[in-house]
Amino acid sequence: MMHSGIKKPFTEVIKANIGDAHAMGQRPITFLRQVVALCTYPNLLDSPSFPEDAKERARRILQGCGGNSLGSYTASQGINCIREDVASYIERRDGGVPADPDNIYLTTGASDGISAILKILVSGGGKSRTGVMIPIPQYPLYSAAISELDAIQVNYYLDEENCWALNVNELRRALNEAKAYCNPKVLCIINPGNPTGQVQNRKCIEDVIHFAWEEKLFLLADEVYQDNVYSEGCQFHSFKKILYEMGPEYYNNVELASFHSTSKGYMGECGYRGGYMEVINLHPEIKGQLVKLLSVRLCPPVSGQAAMDIVVNPPVPGEESYAQFIKEKESVLNNLAKKAKLTEDMFNKIPGIHCNPLQGAMYAFPRIFIPSKAIEEAKAHKMAPDMFYCMKLLEETGICVVPGSGFGQREGTYHFRMTILPPVEKLKILLEKVKDFHIKFLEKYA
Amino acid sequence: MMHSGIKKPFTEVIKANIGDAHAMGQRPITFLRQVVALCTYPNLLDSPSFPEDAKERARRILQGCGGNSLGSYTASQGINCIREDVASYIERRDGGVPADPDNIYLTTGASDGISAILKILVSGGGKSRTGVMIPIPQYPLYSAAISELDAIQVNYYLDEENCWALNVNELRRALNEAKAYCNPKVLCIINPGNPTGQVQNRKCIEDVIHFAWEEKLFLLADEVYQDNVYSEGCQFHSFKKILYEMGPEYYNNVELASFHSTSKGYMGECGYRGGYMEVINLHPEIKGQLVKLLSVRLCPPVSGQAAMDIVVNPPVPGEESYAQFIKEKESVLNNLAKKAKLTEDMFNKIPGIHCNPLQGAMYAFPRIFIPSKAIEEAKAHKMAPDMFYCMKLLEETGICVVPGSGFGQREGTYHFRMTILPPVEKLKILLEKVKDFHIKFLEKYA
Repeated sequence: MMHSGIKKPFTEVIKANIGDAHAMGQRPITFLRQVVALCTYPNLLDSPSFPEDAKERARRILQGCGGNSLGSYTASQGINCIREDVASYIERRDGGVPADPDNIYLTTGASDGISAILKILVSGGGKSRTGVMIPIPQYPLYSAAISELDAIQVNYYLDEENCWALNVNELRRALNEAKAYCNPKVLCIINPGNPTGQVQNRKCIEDVIHFAWEEKLFLLADEVYQDNVYSEGCQFHSFKKILYEMGPEYYNNVELASFHSTSKGYMGECGYRGGYMEVINLHPEIKGQLVKLLSVRLCPPVSGQAAMDIVVNPPVPGEESYAQFIKEKESVLNNLAKKAKLTEDMFNKIPGIHCNPLQGAMYAFPRIFIPSKAIEEAKAHKMAPDMFYCMKLLEETGICVVPGSGFGQREGTYHFRMTILPPVEKLKILLEKVKDFHIKFLEKYA
Repeated sequence: MMHSGIKKPFTEVIKANIGDAHAMGQRPITFLRQVVALCTYPNLLDSPSFPEDAKERARRILQGCGGNSLGSYTASQGINCIREDVASYIERRDGGVPADPDNIYLTTGASDGISAILKILVSGGGKSRTGVMIPIPQYPLYSAAISELDAIQVNYYLDEENCWALNVNELRRALNEAKAYCNPKVLCIINPGNPTGQVQNRKCIEDVIHFAWEEKLFLLADEVYQDNVYSEGCQFHSFKKILYEMGPEYYNNVELASFHSTSKGYMGECGYRGGYMEVINLHPEIKGQLVKLLSVRLCPPVSGQAAMDIVVNPPVPGEESYAQFIKEKESVLNNLAKKAKLTEDMFNKIPGIHCNPLQGAMYAFPRIFIPSKAIEEAKAHKMAPDMFYCMKLLEETGICVVPGSGFGQREGTYHFRMTILPPVEKLKILLEKVKDFHIKFLEKYA
């Protein structure tokens, strides 16, 4: 579609298709990079230009490394002291609910952890093929992993009319239908939602946990956007915390794996491929299989493990770097909150576009009206109508977004996913361009 | 076996079981760490304590990163300019044979590349299940990946009497037998050998390539020890180079993937999980599948990509850091060569142990005589005899090595793999301890 040499009606391609914060100009958190640089080149531990709290973190991480070097393999599960820091972080986050470092696995980004646990949980062929329930719309890692594992994808639909809420009746419908042709064992939740940006409330999480308990489903909670919550009245609740608050019948029985990452939040360190997974009530035999699987790949990248440590163990009040850290963190998060609101408001002013509130994460997933003439033309090109729309948008404006069909959507509805990561001024221009494009598109295919 | 609290007849466990150089005290190459630190914390680009050639490398890498940050995702195939550096390195290494950056894929260590290409090449069930030929003894990544993919492991045996040479007649025997029950499509070679340490000569590589051409096998050349060659008269020849020298009938037809890594050589940067794969004559459709598979994991860790860049693009004569770099590199490699000879000599002085020359890589794989009484006792404990031997060695001396049964060996022969990574003085003590242990073991079970 993009022919080199042919003049385009725009001067710059704006990539709003992937949650890649630094590529869109977000600055790294200084403290995190200082610690990783100190670990990388320990001569810097003698440099007066690095703060003492960063040096302390670096020394502690290096003590956890063979030969005090980031260049050594670590245990497949990750460096002990970092897993301890992750456990402490989870306890603080969840108001004191206990977390055991033995249940923490450091991973190569969250994707690696999700693929690994799915691989372990999926087994059996024929009618006993494992069913994995995923939200629609979903993040395509899930559909790709399920298909790679030859498991069965079981769709449950989020309720667009109700801010993409997760409804347990819909879970039950999907489960009961799936039981006819597979063995549903896993229920995946993305909270805050990707691409849909909803933040689940406590009642909804309780309902989901009760449902998983009742139906003996393994809960897989993708919580990588836990620091990205913007809307008034919305709050992130971890599945782990609510599970414990529901009492021992639940927390002694429901199997849960939850995921976090260095890539999102206010750090946006995608390139480090850092992450962790916490497992609850995982059968010891399954745990053994998991460790065996992970050990084939030796260990997660050690600089990513170090980055993860700083995500869960940032400067605290009283430390030298605290003031700068908090300023940088709040600047990123306040900016994202502002852009979430701006995006929602601007989209909802465009005729033929409806956008739910961006309560969390870092994407808008607006519903777009595509006229039937455009749908016909798309079909003539053998393209999904929203793919056709997104290609036209790219060709005419240089704006790159992802068609809703890449995430799944209710039949006959059309969407696209757009990140809110461009800087505010650029985002405004981008939204104006989408508006102009959309109005012209409606006119053209009226 | 190791009970906490029970006093052991040693004061320290010596881990000679894994090729983890830094954990055994090898120092990182200064230049590599300087470049990665500069990339991590670009404020250091203003620091007078970093050399200009390191800064140049860092600036170039950062220019290849979105937002000039290691924290951005890269293309799934890896950063363009690093793939260009890899291609130039291969051309220099192979005396001018052309290398195309489009054929280079940066990976999360070599293991990740090997698993990915095997996944793409393996297909089909029943009698058409894909056979993958691997050397015995082998590095267990291969057997694990083959079993994970539900492919068929086809063993060919290296010739222990002949310095672990690869014999094409043995390849042919293995292939012909395998054709009865599977569809052999892939031939894996490890050169220099792991765990066996042999370095293949040019004639042998030619024979293997001719065989692969004749039988239409996909060649998978694990060449991660290409910088680790020690014996007089031995030289590393890449499969790629020999393939081209054999002429167009070969280099236009034989499919080849070769692998390198930051983990071995003189850098020993295992923790960075850096590596690359070069593919030759890969069908465009297969290439498309490969990119799709790799894109699910987004990208290899970017600091590992940066480390890989320095492995292929180290300081050259005339540059500020050259003298120190070459001193550090030669110190590591000379030490390894010295330890390779020392280990071979010491083992061969022990009655009941025979050790082939350690021509390359970083392991000894001596053959050990285990008396029949010990074999019986092992069987009573439901253990492989060499596992029994290695457990006894660990319990009595604190030395940790890996039994030959973990790599595969001819029925009725026993081995263990030991790294030569401990510092010389420690290695001498270790070898003396093995000697004392072995002599006592022979006496006890005489």
